[in-house]
Amino acid sequence: MKNQPIGVFDSGIGGLTVVKEIIKLLPNESIIYLGDTARVPYGTRDKETITKFALELANFLLKQKVKVLVVACNTISATCLDKIQAVSPVPVIGVIKPIISEAKKITKHQRIGVIGTRATVNSGVFNNKRFITQACPLFVPLVEEGLINHPATKLIAEDYLKIFKNKKINVLILGCTHYHLLKKVIQRFVGKKVRLVDSAGPVSRELKRILEKNNLLTGKKIPKYRFLVTDTPQRTKQIADLFFNYRFPGKLEKIIII
Amino acid sequence: MKNQPIGVFDSGIGGLTVVKEIIKLLPNESIIYLGDTARVPYGTRDKETITKFALELANFLLKQKVKVLVVACNTISATCLDKIQAVSPVPVIGVIKPIISEAKKITKHQRIGVIGTRATVNSGVFNNKRFITQACPLFVPLVEEGLINHPATKLIAEDYLKIFKNKKINVLILGCTHYHLLKKVIQRFVGKKVRLVDSAGPVSRELKRILEKNNLLTGKKIPKYRFLVTDTPQRTKQIADLFFNYRFPGKLEKIIII
Repeated sequence: MKNQPIGVFDSGIGGLTVVKEIIKLLPNESIIYLGDTARVPYGTRDKETITKFALELANFLLKQKVKVLVVACNTISATCLDKIQAVSPVPVIGVIKPIISEAKKITKHQRIGVIGTRATVNSGVFNNKRFITQACPLFVPLVEEGLINHPATKLIAEDYLKIFKNKKINVLILGCTHYHLLKKVIQRFVGKKVRLVDSAGPVSRELKRILEKNNLLTGKKIPKYRFLVTDTPQRTKQIADLFFNYRFPGKLEKIIII
Repeated sequence: MKNQPIGVFDSGIGGLTVVKEIIKLLPNESIIYLGDTARVPYGTRDKETITKFALELANFLLKQKVKVLVVACNTISATCLDKIQAVSPVPVIGVIKPIISEAKKITKHQRIGVIGTRATVNSGVFNNKRFITQACPLFVPLVEEGLINHPATKLIAEDYLKIFKNKKINVLILGCTHYHLLKKVIQRFVGKKVRLVDSAGPVSRELKRILEKNNLLTGKKIPKYRFLVTDTPQRTKQIADLFFNYRFPGKLEKIIII
């Protein structure tokens, strides 16, 4: 069992930012990644649809005999992590709990800013006076179109982020894997004193902890990587390259899951 | 057969602009509309995925015994109309042929501008010296987020539409049903002399012609409308209202098609 791969899945390819951190922290582990690029984005859909799609992804990876499931998508983790845990015989790790722990560790004040998809923000996981939340639905398409430094992106970021003005937050949770690529523009609008935290680091450390605890660290030293997607337009590869600074450690294979 | 409903389908709810024109032109006809809001947008996906999804939608409507199928989506019509026609026992009408005929009728010059999704532009249906094409992938999410008059939308429109400067086009095909809501901003950047044509009018007139030719006009006088969607976030209703100027003639019913 311990030499089986880690299964990582996401609504699209934003979860590759998590894979990158896992490779850094656990360089001997093999990984199967599954991105549902045929049905991305999930963040604009309702709970029932997100749950149905997420269970299809999880079941596909479970059939590949993964030793652990990492839900590298904030929308899925916020919406239906419990439903995935209910069907999985192996440990399931979402991105929300680790990122909240991380943010709480860092913050000196009471309140924590959170940005994410509409589904993540409306899921209820941040329904607590401690959090100030803002849905940023256009950030994902802007990133996917490569408009990272476009003046239009700055105008939209300004609109979304004005809610955090004078709220004295010192931590902002980037509650969507795509936002990593917008760090510069986000930092500019929330100010230099606000620390931006994203899921990749915290969830990778949680994964390492769970593998150690369950005696599941691999004994092998040559990792194998597979990157599966459900749709392959040319652009998917380009965005994957962006996430990996043009050092993508494999190729994208298209598969049909249903 | 003639009293059966007309089946209209789209990747999302943009096709409602077509339904609106059909109701105006053929007020006695019953309509079943199917919008795949759980998997929208199609315009960023590859041909194989678009074809698979489109056939699922078409087969669902064929089981409801529709007398004709209207493909109210430019992306599907441009990508796989032939595949749908191959499986359908009833006539199938796409939006591309009628809109090209309309544009050719109007234009005085040789060249016709076309804007659409990436899949529509790359499909090859506009591969002819007569057409100047431009993909506008961010227009759909901007419309869906209601940013119709936002300064960011103007900046993005300016970027997309600069290709038509000094090209002496006098017709621009709006090759995506959502673009209807951006007519003002598009007109501003291409100039007042360019006539904008969208699919709704031309495809409705083609539908009328086909029904007459096949003796399929209804004998009844009280039309029934059903609006089916595969996902129902609150916002879908809001956008449907936008398309119908807040006089939406029914309610959205969520259904599972696969």
